[in-house]
Formats: sequence, C-alpha cells, structure tokens
Amino acid sequence: MRRIWISLLLLAAARAESVDAIWTARWVVTENAHRDVIENGAVAIANGRIAAVGPRAEITRRYQARQTFSRPEAILMPGLINAHTHAAMSLLRGIADDVKLEDWLSRYIFPAEAKNVSPDFVYWGTRLACLEMMRAGVTTLVDMYYFEDRAADAVKQAGLRGVMGETIIGMKSPDSATPADALRFTERFIERFRNDPLITPAVAPHALYTNTPESLRGSRALANRYRVPLVIHLAETRTEDQTSRAKYGLSPARYLDYLGVWNGWSIAAHGVWLDAADRSLLKRRGAGIAHCPSSNMKLASGIAPVTAMLAEGMNVGLGTDGPAGSNNDFDLMEEMNLAADLQKAATGDPRSLPAAQAVDMATILGAKAIGMDGQIGSLEPGKRADLITLRLDVPNAIPLYHVYSQIVYALKASDVEDTVVEGLLLVEHGRALREDTSAIYAKALQYQNQISSSLKQ
Amino acid sequence: MRRIWISLLLLAAARAESVDAIWTARWVVTENAHRDVIENGAVAIANGRIAAVGPRAEITRRYQARQTFSRPEAILMPGLINAHTHAAMSLLRGIADDVKLEDWLSRYIFPAEAKNVSPDFVYWGTRLACLEMMRAGVTTLVDMYYFEDRAADAVKQAGLRGVMGETIIGMKSPDSATPADALRFTERFIERFRNDPLITPAVAPHALYTNTPESLRGSRALANRYRVPLVIHLAETRTEDQTSRAKYGLSPARYLDYLGVWNGWSIAAHGVWLDAADRSLLKRRGAGIAHCPSSNMKLASGIAPVTAMLAEGMNVGLGTDGPAGSNNDFDLMEEMNLAADLQKAATGDPRSLPAAQAVDMATILGAKAIGMDGQIGSLEPGKRADLITLRLDVPNAIPLYHVYSQIVYALKASDVEDTVVEGLLLVEHGRALREDTSAIYAKALQYQNQISSSLKQ
Repeated sequence: MRRIWISLLLLAAARAESVDAIWTARWVVTENAHRDVIENGAVAIANGRIAAVGPRAEITRRYQARQTFSRPEAILMPGLINAHTHAAMSLLRGIADDVKLEDWLSRYIFPAEAKNVSPDFVYWGTRLACLEMMRAGVTTLVDMYYFEDRAADAVKQAGLRGVMGETIIGMKSPDSATPADALRFTERFIERFRNDPLITPAVAPHALYTNTPESLRGSRALANRYRVPLVIHLAETRTEDQTSRAKYGLSPARYLDYLGVWNGWSIAAHGVWLDAADRSLLKRRGAGIAHCPSSNMKLASGIAPVTAMLAEGMNVGLGTDGPAGSNNDFDLMEEMNLAADLQKAATGDPRSLPAAQAVDMATILGAKAIGMDGQIGSLEPGKRADLITLRLDVPNAIPLYHVYSQIVYALKASDVEDTVVEGLLLVEHGRALREDTSAIYAKALQYQNQISSSLKQ
Repeated sequence: MRRIWISLLLLAAARAESVDAIWTARWVVTENAHRDVIENGAVAIANGRIAAVGPRAEITRRYQARQTFSRPEAILMPGLINAHTHAAMSLLRGIADDVKLEDWLSRYIFPAEAKNVSPDFVYWGTRLACLEMMRAGVTTLVDMYYFEDRAADAVKQAGLRGVMGETIIGMKSPDSATPADALRFTERFIERFRNDPLITPAVAPHALYTNTPESLRGSRALANRYRVPLVIHLAETRTEDQTSRAKYGLSPARYLDYLGVWNGWSIAAHGVWLDAADRSLLKRRGAGIAHCPSSNMKLASGIAPVTAMLAEGMNVGLGTDGPAGSNNDFDLMEEMNLAADLQKAATGDPRSLPAAQAVDMATILGAKAIGMDGQIGSLEPGKRADLITLRLDVPNAIPLYHVYSQIVYALKASDVEDTVVEGLLLVEHGRALREDTSAIYAKALQYQNQISSSLKQ
C-alpha cells in the first residue's frame, strides 16, 4: 500500500505543474534572507503570486507555463519600492528650484496648489507619475497627497501597488476645510479601498508642526481602527527638530511618541535629524523610515544618519519625495546610487552603505520599512509577483563583474526593460503596454498652461 | 552708382546662403554670454562650424540647408564636456566597489592593470567608453591613461573630441619603464596628433605624490614646447593635502606652483582640498578645475569647495572620473544634477549652485576650464558644431516650467536624442549611427573574461 502512494507521488511530481508565466534571466537577484543570486535563473508565476524561484533548468522542468519571457541579457529582481512620494505633484515638476524652503512653500507651492489642486489634477498628475515610475522599475509607491481617492484610482488604473496616504493638515486644504473634515474624508476613503488587492489606504498627518495633538491622536486612532498605516514627515529639517525641542522639550520623534503616534503601523519620511535615542525609540515602536537622499540634498535639509540606522537594525527604505522642487523625478535607481554615495561622503569611509545594502533598501528592507515584507520586497514563493528586469546589453552595463555593483553604480532607470506587478505585465521592452501615453501627456500640458497662468495672476 | 551697389547687396542678402545642415528645436539653449534661450530656435551648420543661431523663422529664411533636422519636442544645447576621465577603464567597470582606497588601488586596480593593460585594451576600452558617452551627450572628453595614442585613435574613430593625456608616473607603467621613457612616448604621441582637428594631445603627470620634481618639470616643459595642455590630479584626498604640507610645508597646489607646473595651459582634476590661497593662486595662473562629484562622494574623498570657486570666478568643469570604482559610468547629466545637489547639501543653502550654473559647468565653463572656449562650449557663430538634443516627449520631462531646471533636475542621459560633433551626426534618435556596437561588446566581454581570470591567479 505504501509503495503505491509513493509511486503516485512520484508520478505527480513528474507531471509539470501549470503556471501562468515563467520569466528567465541571466541573473535572478532574489533578495531572500541569503541574498541568493541565481545565474541563469527563473521565476514561475501563478495567480499573481510567485510560485517558484530557482535555476532555469529546474523551473522549466517542474512547471509548464502559458507564457514564457526570456531575458538572457538581463537581471531579474524584485520591483522597486518608492517609500515616500507625492505623485500628483508631477504636474508642478520643477516649478520652483534653487530657492529658500520658505519661499518655495509660501511663494510657489501653496499658491499653485490652492489655485489648481482638484480631484482631476490629482488623478492625472498621479497617472503621469505612475507612467514614469513603472518605466523606471517602481512597482510600489507610498504616497501622501490630497484627494487621495483619486490618486488611488490612478494607481489602480496604472496597475501599480500603492500605500495611499490622505493628508491631514491643520489648515484649509484642497479637499478639507479642517483636520476633522480631513479625518472624515479619510475614513470614507479607507472604507472604499480597504479590501483592494493593490491599494493600501493610509492616514497621513502631514507633520508634527502642521498638526495639533488632537489631529495627530485622531489620525492614529483612525489608522488603528482600520489596521492601516499612518504616514508622516518626521525630523526633515533642523528647524523642525529645534522648534520641537524648544516648544515641548522633546525631539519630534519623542514628542510624537508622547502623543501615542507610533502605537501602530507607521511609516516616517526623511528622519534626517534623528538622534540615537530617537532611533532606538522608533526601532522599538517598529516604525519604518523612508530615506530621501535627492530631496535632502536638493532642499539642503541635512544628511540622514543612515549608516547608523542600518547598523542599529532599523528598517530603512528609499523615497524620491515629490517632483516639485525636491527631486524632480521619480527615479529610484538614482536614489539607490545616491544613498550609497551620500553615506560614503558623510562618513568619510568608502565602505559605508555598500551596493547590496542599497539594493536591500529599494526592495526587501523598504518592504519591511513600509510593513509589507510579508507580501513584497523579495522573489520568494508565496509573495506577490512584483518584479522587474534590467537590460545588460547597453554600454554602461558592460563588462559586469558584480551584479549588485552594476545595479547600484552603473545601471539607470532607463535600463529597466520590463515591469510586472501582481503578475501583470505593465512594461515590456521599455514600453508601457496599458497606458494611454498621449492622453496623459495632453492632460499634463493642459495643466502646465493652467498652472503657469494661475501663478502670473 | 551707390544705389546700384546697395541693390546688389540687398539681392545677395535676399538669396539664401547655403549651409550643410539646419537643426531646429523647441528650445535652443545657447550658453552664450547672455545665456540666451531661444524658443523655436535653430542652428545652421557649415563645414563643421556653427554658421548662425537664432529664431527658426529667421534661420530658415536666411539659409538653405542640404539637410534639415527638426526636433519640435526637444531642447538643443551645446555638447557636454567631460573634463576628467580615464575612458579605457570602462573594461574594469565596477571591479572593486565599497572598499578602502588603498585596497582598491593595491589589491585590484594596479594588479588588474599590470596584467591586462595593452594597446588593444586601451583602444577597445576607449571605444566602449565613447559609445556610452556619445549616447549620453558627451561631445568632448579630457582623458588620462596609458597608450594614449590608441585612446586617441579610438576617440577619432568614434568621432568625439578629446584632450588626450598620456600618463607620466614615477613607476613602471603599462607603456613605459620610467617617467623619462613616458615623456619620450608622450612627445612622439604629441607629434602624431598635434594638428588633428578632433584630438588635442596632452601631457598628464598623474599627481604630485606619484611624480618627482624632475618628471613634473619635464612634463611642463614638454607641454609648453608643443603648446599643449598639462593634465594632473590635484588635492583629491586629505592624505594628499596633509602629506604635501608635512613634506614640503606647502599645499599641493602651492608646491606644484613652486615647481612651475602651472606656468602654462593646465587642467587640474578634483581640487577637493583647495584652500582660499590655493584657489586664488590657480585662478591667477589660469588653471582650470575638473570637479568630479560622483567620484568624490563614492571614494569619500571629501566635498570640493565649488560654491567658493564659482563665486571667486574660477573656471570649473565637470568630470565623471573613471568607471572602475569611482563612478561607475560616464553620465555627465548625472554629474550636473549631483554637482548642484552636493553644493546645496554642503553649504546648507538650497540656492547654492543653481541649475543654470550647473549647465554652465557642463558646457561653456567646462570649455573655459579646459582652455577650449574659443572653439566649443556654446552655440555661437564660428564655434565648432558640437551639439546635442534632449527629448521632451518622456514622462520625466513633462510638464516643463523652466528649461535649465528641467535639464539639471529632471532629464537623464537616456533622454539624449542626438549628438553632433564637428557637424557630424554621431547619434540620431538615440542610435549610434557609425559604431559597430556588437564588435565593441564582444571585445569588452572577451576582456571581462580575461580580467576575471587574471585576478584569480
């Protein structure tokens, strides 16, 4: 009897299991716990999830695929996670650069937003941003803006994965007259998207200095009621740090802790001015950090102590921040390179933040920072099938001695060849398959004219 | 009689003058003394030189062209100047990253070079580098390596413009047993290329700390005898600065001045550790600086005082440095962005090194730094026709509020659409027209295998 069972099992194993797709590539960077890199590797996908990862010969023997994608001259790796952005601000790209932060906000951004931000603006701005991001290998974004329901619609339409944070701010905003209104708006938004496979709605109190204790406590309570993340700007500038210490006798991180803001799923952007006690506290609370090197440099906010954060075992991802003066693009490949180089410059040690760690930050560590490493961030069976390929048949990719080095220090966003989210092919050979590019460009140009006129008034 | 002459002159003016090509574009960034940007502009080219620059309507009326290139969705600007590189080291791209500088040189670069650098290595490595650079909008490079005659052959073959520095170094090098041999090699090299329209041969003593007073004085004398530039690494690391001060009681710049090294056409790379007196001295001597932000960050060399240099009126260009650990690519668009962002971070002021100044550094100011602003660096009648176009029909280029901001903070090397050098079209719609890409890749892969094996021995 026992032998019959074994024979049946062997028979089943011999028959190839059916999957939706098999991707093969010269190098498969898994970003699993051993950072396995498989030469001539493959990934099998079924029902939007990763069924198996391994050597090409083994995967193609074990699985029969409806579709096969062969990339003999490419790196296949987990999709990139943009852990902090304001996608719709693509429509304000470069509207005011090289100015003081106060002037930037009061003379350009706030007036432009007050006059132009609408549900339609947010929808089309986010579509433009998603088009740029999918072509640059970003599969997940953590967003913070207004009319976030429309931003979520755009991200869903694009097929990307999004943690979408509706902004709570202590002044009249484009979508809410008061923080209490914004919290009600957010609750309706959460109700609508809470079971969406691609969208994770979030509560996004803008920052400590733009909220009251009530709106911060209210944000935490709302997030916890629905088990969704709270997204906030934290310790971005020296002024924010100094003001908090002067006013409350506590750093921003510790004052927010006193208010209970870290008691739940939390994603904090920037963290430039975190001291050792702040970092230890945030690590204990399980809050993730979104490091934004381009933005911190461009706005002269300071240099985040990322080397220390990583040594202490904090979860640190990478973000582009918004494109209206802080960056001005959504290029996470560039942020990887910059994160590595900036820490070398800051510490005076070229061994700081080596290439593999930069790739971690853009993938599995970023997934941990945003609390989604159970679903994304690495190529492992059971995880969502979010992956990208990077071309190696370009002059800047030749020769290749070390895969991680090449990704961080030599390859570019423009070398992203394919982008897959939840098993769905969004970009193939550099072309966004499902996007109406002309319609998006036309809308963006229409807004460019409208915004330019509005600023002249 | 006088009226007849006037009529004849008017007739001549009315008849369109014949030129080789007219390029039209949505925006023409001239980089002339007024930084004129012409909307719907055009450039007329004849005999490899710029015949005229102006509004499209005027240029197309005044000139009849054999060929017309229309780029209604692009920026047309001067070709980028890579003021410091080691092109052939493309074959060692990323061979050793994230290591200490001493280990990098002694454990990886010197052994790899000793075992592999040959005339053939230099030729093919430089061809690979040129392919990458022309696609990324670089039209002029300032190079420093061995067998520089073969590097010059490769640059000529590619159709780029090069200041080619043969290395003088105080140890056995791949092409010379002694500095005296290297100087003889250099003289033959200069003789061969001194009248070349694309190649400017140069004498390149590697650095103060790798040369003797004799080889430095000999380098200067040789350069002056042929009126060619001297190219040198200067004050790159704190160690170099401190050693010079301890040994000679003078900073590297001042000790080199004591030796007479700056008495002539000079291009100094890095200049990270220049104090105010050094800068004032170098400005008086007319030496140009090649600032290399990626390299300085990646190797943790320090942050060059570029804001001060520019305020003091020094001529500062941008360089990628070599790709074997310092960068690892030849992307001058990235260096522009990084130069601007790094100075903001270093000074704590987001107004430091604004976009237009970064574009200057990559074009006209870079041309001044390398002593070639009479020929290149701006789009002005009489100058060599070295120009590029940047696509604006890509998601990261939309919307557009400020042309300079877009170039520096949003556009990428991959947005370079066309590259023209000396009037000759090298890259059209992103495709290198005259390059045998497969042959270059095949040679590079052959060297990859050879170099990998040589390091295992």
